Amino acid sequence: MARAGRRPGQRSTSDDVLAAARALFAERGYRATTVRAIAAAAGVTPAMIHHFFGGKRQVFLAAIQMPIDPAAILDSVSDGPREESAQRLVRAFVSSWSSEVTGPALRTMIRSAVADEEHAAALRAFAEAVLLPRASAALGVPAVRVAAAMSILVGQAVARSVLGIGPLAALSDDELVALYTPPVQAALGPRAPQSQRGS
Amino acid sequence: MARAGRRPGQRSTSDDVLAAARALFAERGYRATTVRAIAAAAGVTPAMIHHFFGGKRQVFLAAIQMPIDPAAILDSVSDGPREESAQRLVRAFVSSWSSEVTGPALRTMIRSAVADEEHAAALRAFAEAVLLPRASAALGVPAVRVAAAMSILVGQAVARSVLGIGPLAALSDDELVALYTPPVQAALGPRAPQSQRGS
Repeated sequence: MARAGRRPGQRSTSDDVLAAARALFAERGYRATTVRAIAAAAGVTPAMIHHFFGGKRQVFLAAIQMPIDPAAILDSVSDGPREESAQRLVRAFVSSWSSEVTGPALRTMIRSAVADEEHAAALRAFAEAVLLPRASAALGVPAVRVAAAMSILVGQAVARSVLGIGPLAALSDDELVALYTPPVQAALGPRAPQSQRGS
Repeated sequence: MARAGRRPGQRSTSDDVLAAARALFAERGYRATTVRAIAAAAGVTPAMIHHFFGGKRQVFLAAIQMPIDPAAILDSVSDGPREESAQRLVRAFVSSWSSEVTGPALRTMIRSAVADEEHAAALRAFAEAVLLPRASAALGVPAVRVAAAMSILVGQAVARSVLGIGPLAALSDDELVALYTPPVQAALGPRAPQSQRGS
């Protein structure tokens, strides 16, 4: 929204780019999709895509309507004592969903990914190629445990913010963080001797 | 499907009943919706509804396309040592989603509940009026903790079976149960001295 140089009249070109990106990411996966291929499919130049969006990851995030950059969140999560990383992860996730800016967009994104197979395939490709490996390295736990932790947070968001289940919707952010940190910690694995595992 | 007395030619009446039920459950909530009101809205007699579906809960489950009766699952979960109830809950949930009979229907149900506000409202009403109070009593933990445990399992299903996130999709049912039991246990609360709390 705050990005410069994007006027209302250019919207349909931008939509073409995002539709082409969504289709290619879903079909070929995240890694095999290039900005050049997206540009060719959308009938624009790669330079235009770089101008409008930045790089491939930004095109991807816009294509799946993701209003936040998970990489930035991961950086903040891995920055601090490891025994509190579960709590930082839960807090960062809860804050994004509670925000009046990013919350509604995240609801739209999850609704769309659950309803639309192409959207789901793009999100899956990004999670497997970028998000899980990066989070796994940052947190020092296997990708499958990171995936389990993320799924818990997605379930929380679906139950609370999409379905609106009463007892969860009534909780404050702090109460939510307190309730979900132990399960996320349990999904990430045994807390104490993690650094002995050579990660 | 095995229910007697339902012939193809009667399908549109049944659909009318389910549409009326969905609208009323969403608008009035689960408790305030009667079989009589559903019958009136659908232009049939209450006796026809009882004949086709059974009681109110069965109409509800059909209306939200829920292929299993959570009450039956809860009975099996609460039947056994309480310290293993988290594991039984996870196993019952994972089995329903892995089944070739109920799995696809559960995927359809969750997709529909996430995409459609009326469907979500009906599911929410049922969860708050029936499912959470009953599960809370059966497991001896507060409703908010049951809701958190359920949300973890829904997140697992969304990540694995709807989005198809690789590391989770690759797991066997037993591996899934092993991975998700500790988080669900953590959501349900401290394991050891639960029986001292007078539940």
